[in-house]
Amino acid sequence: MRDAVGVGILGFGTIGTGVAKVLLRNREVIARRLGFPLQLVRIADLDTRRDRGVDLEDIRFDDDAAGLISDPRVDIVIELIGGYDAARRMILDAIAKGKHVVTANKALLALHGEEIFGAAAKKGVDVAFEASVGGGIPILRSLREGLAANHIDSLYGILNGTTNYVLTEMEQTGEPFEAVLKRAQDLGYAEADPTFDVDGIDAAHKLTLLVAMAFGAQLTYKDIPTEGIRNVAPVDIEFAEEFGYRIKLLGIAKSHTDPAGKPRIEARVHPTMVPADHLLSKVDGAMNAVAVRGDAVGTTLHYGAGAGELPTASAVVGDLMEIAREIQRGQAGRVAPLSYMPEELHAVDLVPLGELRARTYLRFTALDRPGVLSHITGALGQAGIGIESVLQKGRGLASESVPVLVLTHPAAEADVRAAIDEIDRLPDVTGPTRLIRIEEELSQ
Amino acid sequence: MRDAVGVGILGFGTIGTGVAKVLLRNREVIARRLGFPLQLVRIADLDTRRDRGVDLEDIRFDDDAAGLISDPRVDIVIELIGGYDAARRMILDAIAKGKHVVTANKALLALHGEEIFGAAAKKGVDVAFEASVGGGIPILRSLREGLAANHIDSLYGILNGTTNYVLTEMEQTGEPFEAVLKRAQDLGYAEADPTFDVDGIDAAHKLTLLVAMAFGAQLTYKDIPTEGIRNVAPVDIEFAEEFGYRIKLLGIAKSHTDPAGKPRIEARVHPTMVPADHLLSKVDGAMNAVAVRGDAVGTTLHYGAGAGELPTASAVVGDLMEIAREIQRGQAGRVAPLSYMPEELHAVDLVPLGELRARTYLRFTALDRPGVLSHITGALGQAGIGIESVLQKGRGLASESVPVLVLTHPAAEADVRAAIDEIDRLPDVTGPTRLIRIEEELSQ
Repeated sequence: MRDAVGVGILGFGTIGTGVAKVLLRNREVIARRLGFPLQLVRIADLDTRRDRGVDLEDIRFDDDAAGLISDPRVDIVIELIGGYDAARRMILDAIAKGKHVVTANKALLALHGEEIFGAAAKKGVDVAFEASVGGGIPILRSLREGLAANHIDSLYGILNGTTNYVLTEMEQTGEPFEAVLKRAQDLGYAEADPTFDVDGIDAAHKLTLLVAMAFGAQLTYKDIPTEGIRNVAPVDIEFAEEFGYRIKLLGIAKSHTDPAGKPRIEARVHPTMVPADHLLSKVDGAMNAVAVRGDAVGTTLHYGAGAGELPTASAVVGDLMEIAREIQRGQAGRVAPLSYMPEELHAVDLVPLGELRARTYLRFTALDRPGVLSHITGALGQAGIGIESVLQKGRGLASESVPVLVLTHPAAEADVRAAIDEIDRLPDVTGPTRLIRIEEELSQ
Repeated sequence: MRDAVGVGILGFGTIGTGVAKVLLRNREVIARRLGFPLQLVRIADLDTRRDRGVDLEDIRFDDDAAGLISDPRVDIVIELIGGYDAARRMILDAIAKGKHVVTANKALLALHGEEIFGAAAKKGVDVAFEASVGGGIPILRSLREGLAANHIDSLYGILNGTTNYVLTEMEQTGEPFEAVLKRAQDLGYAEADPTFDVDGIDAAHKLTLLVAMAFGAQLTYKDIPTEGIRNVAPVDIEFAEEFGYRIKLLGIAKSHTDPAGKPRIEARVHPTMVPADHLLSKVDGAMNAVAVRGDAVGTTLHYGAGAGELPTASAVVGDLMEIAREIQRGQAGRVAPLSYMPEELHAVDLVPLGELRARTYLRFTALDRPGVLSHITGALGQAGIGIESVLQKGRGLASESVPVLVLTHPAAEADVRAAIDEIDRLPDVTGPTRLIRIEEELSQ
């Protein structure tokens, strides 16, 4: 057997602990598959006291991140600190010292990817990040290699476990968002500050990386129109069920060409009505899945745990193994560019949301008075928006607001938005109208 | 851009046509991702007359397979002839001439894999075969790379599209196997001689390759206990539905350790009752899917088209791209060993079917006479097999046979088999008893 490749972990939290466990527990099978061992030589974390339940014999564990990065025994630095500033600095420092990097930090890559991958390419080292999208699901690798012969037409991902858990619970209990979120927080399934998850930001981070991988498109997550699940109400879920849909928070990206033949990308994150018979609508609880449509392969679906100590560690260690193999072959530095090497990322225009054309679900909030329905449907009709179904839920006093649910025929979103603006100004309409897009292509 | 890597196709049938289409149609995106073009320089097939709808300009097309293999412009030979003898000879010939090989020929690899991979390793060339399992689904690559950090605990695959199509149709129409098969043949979804598909042999071929990849286990498909779907009756499907299952033809493999600590493998292909809420049971029609459980990642599922011109071509061209990249780096010869290189395949003991322990569905065929049920249940009781449910379907004349359906508590299959042998000798039992295994682990 050849010499070991040395590994250091920056950040000994949940994922770091999982990585250490997998490296130690599966040491033999990893060495057998590689032909040499992966050796965990060092761990750095500010908290050096807490017992993580990992046998640290022969592993140096202290709070000296800079020392770990400089340690000549460390060939690959695993960044699991999270966040922006410190993580970015340490990754750039590791790259500058010629170390390869494995990270699960989608937030960082979705904002500073260009800088980090640029530095790595210049220095000839790898930055691998399979764990940053879909946890243990080998989805980035599948896009980079298994599906590499395809033009990717579209991808649809349930990319955030917390929101999928909350939506699944809302469906099963009929309870409103706030109550389910509170319980998820009590159970540790949602963070104390759930913003990144429930507002779709985490999903947008991941979609940024998927779009780079699938289309070579250079975006930051700030470019992606993003809406979370805070406004999804039990009545929306009931309506969806009645009409053969389930509501999922999807990251969606599609490849387009504008009339002049120039490539454009559609990319967005929002609650979506998915046909109930589509596999994506059967992905429950905290699980993730990505459906990819390629021009040759058709639709593939990649499903698994999107987060958690060991699933995420599975992806991190998979990346370690790939880089270590390349190091032993004297070929490292080509493993995991943000796009296919040597294809470079390029700027692309995004399709504005107003140009989307789809059936749309609208929930109006209006006083339960005679004539209200005709005002709403009249405004839609004047905007040229056909109505497929209308459902007025509940009957209260004339002074109470009730939801009016409308399913439109396919229409341009700009037209729908214009009609909503007008309807929201009607005197009988008492709250902002909610819109949930229906993803019709998924029914094919 | 660097020089092109040259490709030759042996066998210009459905898949060969698909490969040519993908190479030509996606020429630009492939070249951009690789940094150099893949050039289709030659095609050989006995039938040189039929128009495949592919623009063959600049591509030599004749019936000279030996010439193609020897052509110095051909770096990678794609074997798409199928079958055993000629394909084996040509692959070995190509290897001997230092050519890399891509094949979709699971039948050949599941029987002669050892010889072929041995010859390739000796010569230092690659034999890649992603297309041989799961069509366009990058499942072998995921096992080899994305999930490489895991001990694989189990895998469950819907590996044959024809049988999944037939079972789905039987469910939806209530028609018997023969009628549905006949229609599938008329529609071109099943071969004129459907033996390989409906008797589970094709699934066993694929399971052989999955087991090699996941466990490093050296088997041929003949080692794998295999049962097809010919004996699945509409009444079985009805019963399954009533009890919350769907019947799927699964290839199943699990990793075990015998009491002395020696590794053993469970591998089998048969109709299986799958819990109706499991994703595998939602895989309909001709689609394939493989669920993999790893010790770190938990369960992942990989879904897509398991056959067809373009999906299979997607996998073939993905392999071509991987080998071509290695050729350009001067590193070819390590891409696609049957197992992880340099781990070698090793012989393993198979767990005998008699040792399986599971809830089991039994369909007895008996005359509808008083006492029959008590004879059957009595024999089961004497063998120590607990009964969860009994259903006697239909009521005919005393001289007519009716199905008696039994769901057992978990029991060792050897005991169940012994009881069946005894029951099948009862005078009132008029036909062979059918057994369908229930895969309980899938409900977790």
